[in-house]
Order: sequence, then C-alpha cells, then structure tokens
Amino acid sequence: MQPAVDAPGARSDWVSSRPRAERARRVADGLRQQVTAGRFADGMLPDERELAARFGASRNAVREALDLLRGEGLITRRRGVGTMVALPKYGHGLDRLAGLAETLAGYGTVTNQVLVAEAVTELPAAIAERLNVPVEAGGVHLERLRWLDGSPLSLDTTYLTADVGRGVLEGDLAGRDVFGLIEETTGRKLGHAEVTVHAVTADPDTAALLRVPAGAALFALERLTHLGDGRPVDAESIRIRADRMALRATMHRGARS
Amino acid sequence: MQPAVDAPGARSDWVSSRPRAERARRVADGLRQQVTAGRFADGMLPDERELAARFGASRNAVREALDLLRGEGLITRRRGVGTMVALPKYGHGLDRLAGLAETLAGYGTVTNQVLVAEAVTELPAAIAERLNVPVEAGGVHLERLRWLDGSPLSLDTTYLTADVGRGVLEGDLAGRDVFGLIEETTGRKLGHAEVTVHAVTADPDTAALLRVPAGAALFALERLTHLGDGRPVDAESIRIRADRMALRATMHRGARS
Repeated sequence: MQPAVDAPGARSDWVSSRPRAERARRVADGLRQQVTAGRFADGMLPDERELAARFGASRNAVREALDLLRGEGLITRRRGVGTMVALPKYGHGLDRLAGLAETLAGYGTVTNQVLVAEAVTELPAAIAERLNVPVEAGGVHLERLRWLDGSPLSLDTTYLTADVGRGVLEGDLAGRDVFGLIEETTGRKLGHAEVTVHAVTADPDTAALLRVPAGAALFALERLTHLGDGRPVDAESIRIRADRMALRATMHRGARS
Repeated sequence: MQPAVDAPGARSDWVSSRPRAERARRVADGLRQQVTAGRFADGMLPDERELAARFGASRNAVREALDLLRGEGLITRRRGVGTMVALPKYGHGLDRLAGLAETLAGYGTVTNQVLVAEAVTELPAAIAERLNVPVEAGGVHLERLRWLDGSPLSLDTTYLTADVGRGVLEGDLAGRDVFGLIEETTGRKLGHAEVTVHAVTADPDTAALLRVPAGAALFALERLTHLGDGRPVDAESIRIRADRMALRATMHRGARS
C-alpha cells in the first residue's frame, strides 16, 4: 500500500518547490505555536531578517510562512509598520469541563448574542437519541453567538432535556455559560462530557455570523454533557473560529482507560 | 460589546436564508456525528426523503447539508446510486498518548512514507527551546507521510533529541510509530505529552502530499512528548486530514488540575 518515495503522479507539479514549502511550513508552525503561547506580548513579530535567522530559513521561506499565517487570520502585515498578531489566540483545555466564559476568565469578557431560545415540543430524532429520551419528550433549543471583547468567537447550538432546560430558559443567557445556569437552576453538579472535535471550513452563513471569510478553518465540536449521575442532559454543536482559539490537552502514556 | 440581535451590517445579505442555513447546519452536524460513530456500516446513507423525516428538515435543507458534507470530503453523491460515506472517519483519543498505528490497530494498517530521516548538527532555535537543549546539541529530523490502507492520513514532522534520536534513526521508520521505537531503543517509557490542536486550511504543498484539495480543513497538532522522568525528547508538528479523522476527549467537571 505504501508508495515508493519516488512514486510518480500528483507530485510532479510541486516537487521543485518542496524544500521551501517544507521550511515555510516549519516556520509557520513555530510562529503559530509562539503566538498561541502569548510570546509576542506587544503584538509585534520580529522582522523577516530576524525570523529567518531564528528559524534557520531563507527570507523567501519566511515570507511564505507569513503568507500562510495571514491566510489563517493569525497575523496582519502592513508596509512600513511590520507584522502584527491579528487577535490573541487562546487555548481551551480539553481536560477540564468548563464553559467558555469560565475558560476565558481573566482574558476577556464573553457575552452571548441569543439567536434562538425556545422550548420545543419535539426534539430532532438524532438529538433525542443522544439525550436518550423520546422525540416527544421535547426540550429546549438555544442558538447563541458568543463574543469575546467585541469579536465573535463561536456559534453554539444547544439542546437541553425538558427538565433541565426549563430553568435555563429563564436564566441570563446573554451573560452566562449554560453550564453554570444548569448547575444553578437544577442544584445539581455536572459530571463529564464526551467531546468529538472536527475541523471544517466555514459555510457562507456561518462565516457571516462569525465574521470570517467563507472557507476559513473552524473547529466543529460535538459535546454531550452529563449530570454527575451520568444522565446526558446537554447536546451541543459548537463552531469555533480557529484563528482565535486552539485546543489543548495533556496525554498520558499507559493502559487504555 | 455585544451587538443587539437586530444590529445592522453584514447580516443583511444572508438573513433571508438564515433559517434554512441553520437547519442545514444542524442536519450536517447530526450526519457527521453519525458517520464518525460508524453508523452507516455499509457506507450508504438514507435517501433525502428519509433524512428529511429523520432530522425534521425540508428536502432543501437536507440537500444543503449534503453539499456541506461533500465539501468536507466526508461523502460522495452519485446520481442513481445515492449518497455514500467517502472514507471512514476515525476517532483519535486525546486522553491517552498513543501513536497512530497503535490508535488505529484493528481499523487498518498504517504505513509510513519516509520523506526525511537525518541527523542534524543544529536544531532550529524554536525546536531547541521546546526540547530545552542548546541549538548545537543537534538531534534527529524526520518527516513522514502516513498512510492508512492506501490513502494518506497525516504528514508528521518530528525532531528528537540527539540521544533518543540516534536509535530511532536505525529503526523501522516505514513500519513503526516513533513512540514504540523510542521506548524500544532507549529501554525507557514515555510519560506524557502536551498537545495543542489548531484547525487550518491546507496549503498547496501539503494538499498535494495529503491528496486533498488546497483549502481543505486540516488539524495541525503541536505535540511535545516527554520521557517518564519529565524530560522533553520529541517535538512534533502533525497535519491530519480532517475528512478522515476526528479527535475525541472526555472532559470532567471539577477543580482545575
């Protein structure tokens, strides 16, 4: 199944630029990592000459890397000014179950533009199945566009079971995480969530809502959150601007859990 | 900072199609989740009429959802045949530190096309810093294109410290995970890794290597792996085809660790 390294085919049209593309990728990866780590506190990146020295790459490779990062929305370049971090990129831990406002406490203020907040008498079948209730049990449907300090960060679609959703619907949906509202209005603690992370490109409608170009990379998270007793109560689909957020995890070696 | 729901601006051009776009997104999310969960064992999706009933959406919304998923490379549609899963999409757990071949054991055979395997006398400065060694300590540089059952899955760039890399360079790089080779050749166990996950779009060179259209969504992982004693020895940048793999995690509520 494994083709030889010198296999012919689609490679013919790019092989000549391969070494520079590889170096550009390596520079882009290094810079993306440093931007996400908050390395450039004043928002200014070093000039091309210094980046070339720092990464052991040619100016051309550095320029290509900066083009890649500009395409990702991570940096902006202005002649006579230099290269700047466009917006800070935050890490969202996948280890601990926390809402967005909780996660970003200390970095900025999260506010929510409530697009939909309604009780529904029937759940979509695929959602009912995940929540392990009949379709006709109904529930609560929320759609919120979440803003961090004046620019949109994520578009969250949430379905809650009827009993849990009832109180949440009365809560401060514009100012609060759903997790906090669930715990407050039910008096019960959340337990765990299963998360599946996809990377997708933005469709035109999502792009307009999140104010990114159509085709920009997004995270699409499916998150099913359970109460402490194990019952699933909150099924979410979350689209996150990938230029503003990275996901972090710590992985441990050892037996499969 | 939070605009009113009826704020003017970029919304004017999409507001008329909003409800259908929202339903299409919801159908796409549901189907993506089911495809990733291996629901359609024979690879065939139900027809539009049945999907519309199942998701409580119009045929138009279903068609729009299928277009989104086709754009992601998840499905193919052929007139007279129907809608098929393009390639299985696998879950890669972010909880346990495992190589790709280990993770996919039982699903298929991973082979590696070795593009670069060399000892370097100087490490790139950004890598040396992450590995906590001087640039002139040198190390080992690997670039591998990883195939699963005849199609490319990821492009992995790896830098190993000199002591750990020496043995790995002699190992079966085409057939084995680097993690297994490290543990075998050093006689020491790996401990943990810090992972940062980005979503990006494919640059033309990466796209050609991974055989996806330029602009397709990819995961870009930065992973720093430590030996059991805590020393970082393996710094990787991994680009993964997002049409073939999703990332999974279980998150727990409770104190920040």
